[in-house]
Amino acid sequence: MTVNEQVYAIGITEAHQKMHLIEIPLRPVGAHDVHIKIQYCGICHSDLHHVKQEWGLTKFPAVPGHEIVGTVSAVGSEVSKYKIGDSVGVGCIVNSCRTCEECSNHSEQYCNNGMTGTYGAPSQDPLGHTCGGYAEAIVVDENYVLSIPANLDLAAAAPLLCAGITVWSPMKYYGVKTGDSVAVLGLGGLGHMAVKFAAALGAKVTVLSRSAGKTDDAYRLGATNVLITSDKAAVAAARKSFNFIIDTVSAEHDLNAMTSLLKTNGSLILVGASPQPLGLSPFALIPKRIKIGGSMVGGIKETQDMLDFCGTHNITSDIELIGVDKTETAYERVLKSDVKFRFVLDIAGSLNKDVVVE
Amino acid sequence: MTVNEQVYAIGITEAHQKMHLIEIPLRPVGAHDVHIKIQYCGICHSDLHHVKQEWGLTKFPAVPGHEIVGTVSAVGSEVSKYKIGDSVGVGCIVNSCRTCEECSNHSEQYCNNGMTGTYGAPSQDPLGHTCGGYAEAIVVDENYVLSIPANLDLAAAAPLLCAGITVWSPMKYYGVKTGDSVAVLGLGGLGHMAVKFAAALGAKVTVLSRSAGKTDDAYRLGATNVLITSDKAAVAAARKSFNFIIDTVSAEHDLNAMTSLLKTNGSLILVGASPQPLGLSPFALIPKRIKIGGSMVGGIKETQDMLDFCGTHNITSDIELIGVDKTETAYERVLKSDVKFRFVLDIAGSLNKDVVVE
Repeated sequence: MTVNEQVYAIGITEAHQKMHLIEIPLRPVGAHDVHIKIQYCGICHSDLHHVKQEWGLTKFPAVPGHEIVGTVSAVGSEVSKYKIGDSVGVGCIVNSCRTCEECSNHSEQYCNNGMTGTYGAPSQDPLGHTCGGYAEAIVVDENYVLSIPANLDLAAAAPLLCAGITVWSPMKYYGVKTGDSVAVLGLGGLGHMAVKFAAALGAKVTVLSRSAGKTDDAYRLGATNVLITSDKAAVAAARKSFNFIIDTVSAEHDLNAMTSLLKTNGSLILVGASPQPLGLSPFALIPKRIKIGGSMVGGIKETQDMLDFCGTHNITSDIELIGVDKTETAYERVLKSDVKFRFVLDIAGSLNKDVVVE
Repeated sequence: MTVNEQVYAIGITEAHQKMHLIEIPLRPVGAHDVHIKIQYCGICHSDLHHVKQEWGLTKFPAVPGHEIVGTVSAVGSEVSKYKIGDSVGVGCIVNSCRTCEECSNHSEQYCNNGMTGTYGAPSQDPLGHTCGGYAEAIVVDENYVLSIPANLDLAAAAPLLCAGITVWSPMKYYGVKTGDSVAVLGLGGLGHMAVKFAAALGAKVTVLSRSAGKTDDAYRLGATNVLITSDKAAVAAARKSFNFIIDTVSAEHDLNAMTSLLKTNGSLILVGASPQPLGLSPFALIPKRIKIGGSMVGGIKETQDMLDFCGTHNITSDIELIGVDKTETAYERVLKSDVKFRFVLDIAGSLNKDVVVE
């Protein structure tokens, strides 16, 4: 009989609880598994949706976190990609069918049989569902583990695993390239990564922001222009300026005003998921052959490609590093978009048997 | 001094009139111009919007019609592409700047300086604006004149110039190809051409229709399946079936239900322009990397490519040929979608000094 390892985690055991210290079992390390001692885990807005049951029923105990970085602490007998001591990451996907058209095409995120999310998804783990990175350790199949380039700060690399790949994947899919004019709508966790990536890819980057408060940040991150979207004259003057708009706003907003800023054949890429339907006028699309496309995280291969690109260009996320005791405080600030630009939990440095979450 | 030729036409001289016989001047045939004796002209829903001033202010006298076929009756001294007696067509575009990026790229329909529409657009013609094909003749620069393959029925070829190219252009732009699964939403003038083209391109075609009334037509036109969109169980069973949906519906409809039918990476192409905004849920796009794209008519080169393809595959429109005296009756039936599938006016056979329009 194999005994399941018990680890400390921050999560909830039933609905409507505050986040607190719990214990969860990990599966034994299988032949193809990597056991990762988690160092850092980013806080994604999806984590809040999950523990608040806003995206459907949540399985308990629930431990969120899919921006995971850590160190390999054990490997299964058949593991060939990683060895003990390697710096590795785990993003939003820990398994998929591996046989469908999408998996065969390195698009595990769109697995036709349903990919296994890093938390809250049915799985062969002891709890019957996956638990995420707000925990001391995690066991993941080596094919869903990423290698973190040695030159990157580990804590600041964590948000690359979700915020980063979420904006990187559509930039590659839609072909953002040197010389393109790219606008980024919303300068939060996703938006600030989009600015860094687009600039590093050689595009000219404009930040679209409701107010001038983020102007300095925008330029520091790599933008060459800032367009204040509440300034109707400025918006009118910027008509037909951009090849791409990366739209990271997850609240209701005016798509038609945004498409006016696109050039002919331009694309607006939705990565922020407004729960309200957005009003779309066909006349916003037809006269300029505009596309509006959605995109969701990214595949394992392209996540590794992104991490390697980040290594080459020394790109990480701008973070606020906090102890797990501040998880609830961080959640409150996330809801107010009061973070520059991503909270990262110092798991190894703060998760212990005595922690009290506030 | 050059005298402008006067020709009979069907149009209106001020707002709120019924269509009736008028006379309009044509410009003298310039060095690069082709003078075309019009044989047939299709009736497009845009014609109704124009004469009813539903798409902005209309210039008077107003003569609609941009599905024009006829015979070359004179050519300017520099014309090299056409000679007297040739069967030719004129679509939605009679001029453009010829220098911008879009014109240079054979996308005159998206000319950055504004293409000249075949009717109602500012121009160097005697009236100061263009008049369309409900007239005995038209004078058009040879670069905006199309050649009609000899094997095609001229009357049935007329709707290719707008209805045809409107669905052909996005199929080529988005890359519809052999083996793709294509759905056509709405089986009217545009939709019936989309079915013919998609089938001829080797795609498997499904007609999406609110009711079963058009099933026989769908199969006759080349569809292999018909999905009744009011049948919720059938719609649910057809989830993730199509690579493309060609959406020709120009009234409000449920985009999100339609995108549920698309496969991962699928595209919904809007060519029907609902005046009401359509509700778009980001969740309809993000989980399958779906695109919604608009498209407007097509460039001159691709219109010729389409006509040549039609010549090779013997494709024309299904039409009801009527005299110009029936223009108003036809308009009433267009508003009720009561036409299979396009009205074409027999200009040469019915337009004369005594015609009374009803």
